[in-house]
Amino acid sequence: MSGARASGRLIRFAGDGWEGVTPEVYKDAGEGWLTVTRHRLLGSAEGLPFRLRYFEIAPGGYTTFERHEHQHAVIAIRGEGTVRLGDRWESVRFGDVVYVAPNEPHQFRAAGDEPFGFVCVVDAERDRPVSL
Amino acid sequence: MSGARASGRLIRFAGDGWEGVTPEVYKDAGEGWLTVTRHRLLGSAEGLPFRLRYFEIAPGGYTTFERHEHQHAVIAIRGEGTVRLGDRWESVRFGDVVYVAPNEPHQFRAAGDEPFGFVCVVDAERDRPVSL
Repeated sequence: MSGARASGRLIRFAGDGWEGVTPEVYKDAGEGWLTVTRHRLLGSAEGLPFRLRYFEIAPGGYTTFERHEHQHAVIAIRGEGTVRLGDRWESVRFGDVVYVAPNEPHQFRAAGDEPFGFVCVVDAERDRPVSL
Repeated sequence: MSGARASGRLIRFAGDGWEGVTPEVYKDAGEGWLTVTRHRLLGSAEGLPFRLRYFEIAPGGYTTFERHEHQHAVIAIRGEGTVRLGDRWESVRFGDVVYVAPNEPHQFRAAGDEPFGFVCVVDAERDRPVSL
């Protein structure tokens, strides 16, 4: 398994991020998003066939409204938010799981005064999102 | 994508489980585990190339000490526990991420008075664990 590490490891959560994981800018500017960070937790370095990422949206922020062929498996772990799936909105709180189907237009927004954070799993091989 | 659903959906967390998700017995009896439940959150029904599962270990409980070729990507979301990776033990708390490498002997145990719960992502195609 190319790129696989010889041994496992623990990535310690430090309250507002993970030790050794530098939060990244979510996307290029001008793609219709506001105050979102991306934390790459596990994936290519381990030779995994999928990617485990954490996204955090500051109060008032939102991700790009977009679609793509690849699917999202999401679980919320911080704060409250809403998700748009097609033309409907659903509230999302701690523990809620969101499945985003192939080519389904979707967007996440923070709700409330606290950042909204969720883990999002995707296939290692995936297409590029199309902004809507 | 065979089995993929036409539209996304939200699986609501209800405090001690998810609406519409029946907790299952972790494994057959006699495989060296105690008081563990498995919650299948997303996977085959959605045609995903990976599986999103939640495992919860009651106080005093533990999973099978085992190894397998496939990798685990874990994030803890409830209580406290410990993980054995090879011959070392690490404490695991909310938000901590655990990577279990190919063929690495591993075991999870609850610590403290509350159940220990974690999300575990695996490839859809994977080998059968070997108990140790």
